[in-house]
Amino acid sequence: LDAKASRSSAPTVRSPLHAQAVTDRPIAVDAMGGDHAPAVVVQGAVEAARDFGQQVVLVGQQPLVEAELTRLAVPAGSLPIAVRHASEVVAMDEHASSALRRKKDSSLRVCLELVKAGEAAAAVSAGNSGALMALGSLVLGRIEDVDRAAIATLLPSRAGRTVLIDAGANVDCKPQHLVQFAIMGEVYARRVLGIAEPRVGLLTNGTEDAKGTDVTREALAVLRGLRLRRFLGNVEGRDIYNGNADVVVCDGLLGNVALKTSEGLAEAVRSMLREEIERHVRTKLGALLLRPALDAFRRRVDYAEVGGAPLIGLDGVAFVCHGGSTAKAIRNAVGAAATFAATEVNRHIREDLARHDYLSALRARPVAEAD
Amino acid sequence: LDAKASRSSAPTVRSPLHAQAVTDRPIAVDAMGGDHAPAVVVQGAVEAARDFGQQVVLVGQQPLVEAELTRLAVPAGSLPIAVRHASEVVAMDEHASSALRRKKDSSLRVCLELVKAGEAAAAVSAGNSGALMALGSLVLGRIEDVDRAAIATLLPSRAGRTVLIDAGANVDCKPQHLVQFAIMGEVYARRVLGIAEPRVGLLTNGTEDAKGTDVTREALAVLRGLRLRRFLGNVEGRDIYNGNADVVVCDGLLGNVALKTSEGLAEAVRSMLREEIERHVRTKLGALLLRPALDAFRRRVDYAEVGGAPLIGLDGVAFVCHGGSTAKAIRNAVGAAATFAATEVNRHIREDLARHDYLSALRARPVAEAD
Repeated sequence: LDAKASRSSAPTVRSPLHAQAVTDRPIAVDAMGGDHAPAVVVQGAVEAARDFGQQVVLVGQQPLVEAELTRLAVPAGSLPIAVRHASEVVAMDEHASSALRRKKDSSLRVCLELVKAGEAAAAVSAGNSGALMALGSLVLGRIEDVDRAAIATLLPSRAGRTVLIDAGANVDCKPQHLVQFAIMGEVYARRVLGIAEPRVGLLTNGTEDAKGTDVTREALAVLRGLRLRRFLGNVEGRDIYNGNADVVVCDGLLGNVALKTSEGLAEAVRSMLREEIERHVRTKLGALLLRPALDAFRRRVDYAEVGGAPLIGLDGVAFVCHGGSTAKAIRNAVGAAATFAATEVNRHIREDLARHDYLSALRARPVAEAD
Repeated sequence: LDAKASRSSAPTVRSPLHAQAVTDRPIAVDAMGGDHAPAVVVQGAVEAARDFGQQVVLVGQQPLVEAELTRLAVPAGSLPIAVRHASEVVAMDEHASSALRRKKDSSLRVCLELVKAGEAAAAVSAGNSGALMALGSLVLGRIEDVDRAAIATLLPSRAGRTVLIDAGANVDCKPQHLVQFAIMGEVYARRVLGIAEPRVGLLTNGTEDAKGTDVTREALAVLRGLRLRRFLGNVEGRDIYNGNADVVVCDGLLGNVALKTSEGLAEAVRSMLREEIERHVRTKLGALLLRPALDAFRRRVDYAEVGGAPLIGLDGVAFVCHGGSTAKAIRNAVGAAATFAATEVNRHIREDLARHDYLSALRARPVAEAD
């Protein structure tokens, strides 16, 4: 953590991140974004302000947001919370292009403009993620030499947490995009998870160099030529969870399928286990005794502990949350966004892109794929 | 089940398949293939012969195979088991090309040649899967109008079982390959799982038609034009497990990652839960009481209940098993291969390919991808 962050007197809370940091500037929270907005979003922002001492600016339709603050009985001035009016709302199922062209005063866009203007350290939204990606690129732009912003999701593993990048922003990727994701993911794991030498792997269908597609094989060759601290080469789906890798790099289609498959499996296991447990008194009693272990387990794997994922590669900080986020998830996303900003992930990405000189590495390879 | 299969007097056993069938011709089992061959493989084949009444021919180095039969105290003639000598063995890590060119008398190849000659109804191997795919295409060839054989894996879902096709045989797929996988997967679900109108979905990063890649969008358009009984359009990773789909179609890279990610998650969950349970006497007792539910759950999700997966599209039946297969997995793979052969999946695939006239549907679309 940098000096600015450690000056804070906020209480330290249990977090999947290396350490919770706060920033001098507020986190802009899209109060209107999400399936349960504004109620649950406002509640999560209030919890972040209270638990982390983090400044928050709630962006949305002022009467609605203030009604929620009143409902939560937050006395004016008791917490570092401000409200910023924005007249419009991007609907959850609205096309990104419509949000871009027609809604200049949406809560989502105003959040990003506060970041652009330096008035907020980060934007957090559980709203329309397609619109967030499109508006994020438009309003904030990208870090120099980054072609595509990617979603970096933290998944639970036997060893702690694994960074999956890209978890769904870019379906079609070229080798240089995967290379950029690897560099950005490594910085993220170093700065936010506190892993000095993150093990970085490229997701394919096997560990041998010959596995994967033309695109991944080209990315593999370039990555081998860079000075990543610990590059594992190709890894498999199982390496997301078994603790062998800290950063798993892939295109957004593979990442989305890995993530959604995991969610589906977890839900199915939970539901099938519950069915089997409900059959007998003995097993129901067993489940009751087991509850502390199940609760501890849930805390280790619960997405709400992480809360949100950065759109990494943007020239500014924007976090995307599940549409169905709980207040706890919003709270933790605000904390994660503050930590991302305070640990200056983006500055370190800029430095690493220059240090690796990956563009020359790409140009040195006469391959059509890497245009 | 067809008449031939239902004539059998084999005992009905609990199985994830619609119904266990046997065939008049033996199943050729590669006794030398797998991490624990020949001991575990021979044991599994013996269990299949005993439990299903299925004829089996064990292919491998005769002295080793017979030593295992002696060790298991199987009296000569008591079970429908034959031994066929094959002098060579394909190593687990051997290149497929080496297995093809240099080992004309490998146990794997002899299994496939017995199928080709009509002396066996199916080949089952837990050996080198790359070599099985290459030798399978070489020795058996493919069903007419099928360009690529695919691995069709059965995964547990909230509703029963889902067919994932391709689970890893073909990394790069063109639209027509995905279309063929859909048609073959639907036949498999109808004939082997007994689902009259299987719900077939194309795996991408969302359910909207615009999701996925150029390749999946082209396949989607062609599939919409076919007469599949129930085509769902695009589905997501979660639909593999939530019971919404019976057949999930994808290229072998996505399928492999979905499968390995699931395996990794399941292992991590098991290990993390065990850690939490071991912390306290109370939770250890709870786990003890819960055991019947956990065992029932394990039976629902255990891969060994399915045992193996067909290389679907080959002009003959070949099943690939996990290298680390247990005897139970081998036993069930022999049963699944017998059922696949007895229910004449391949004849129905031939008929459906003709009925859908999918080649004309592809040619009718002037798209470069579908060459």
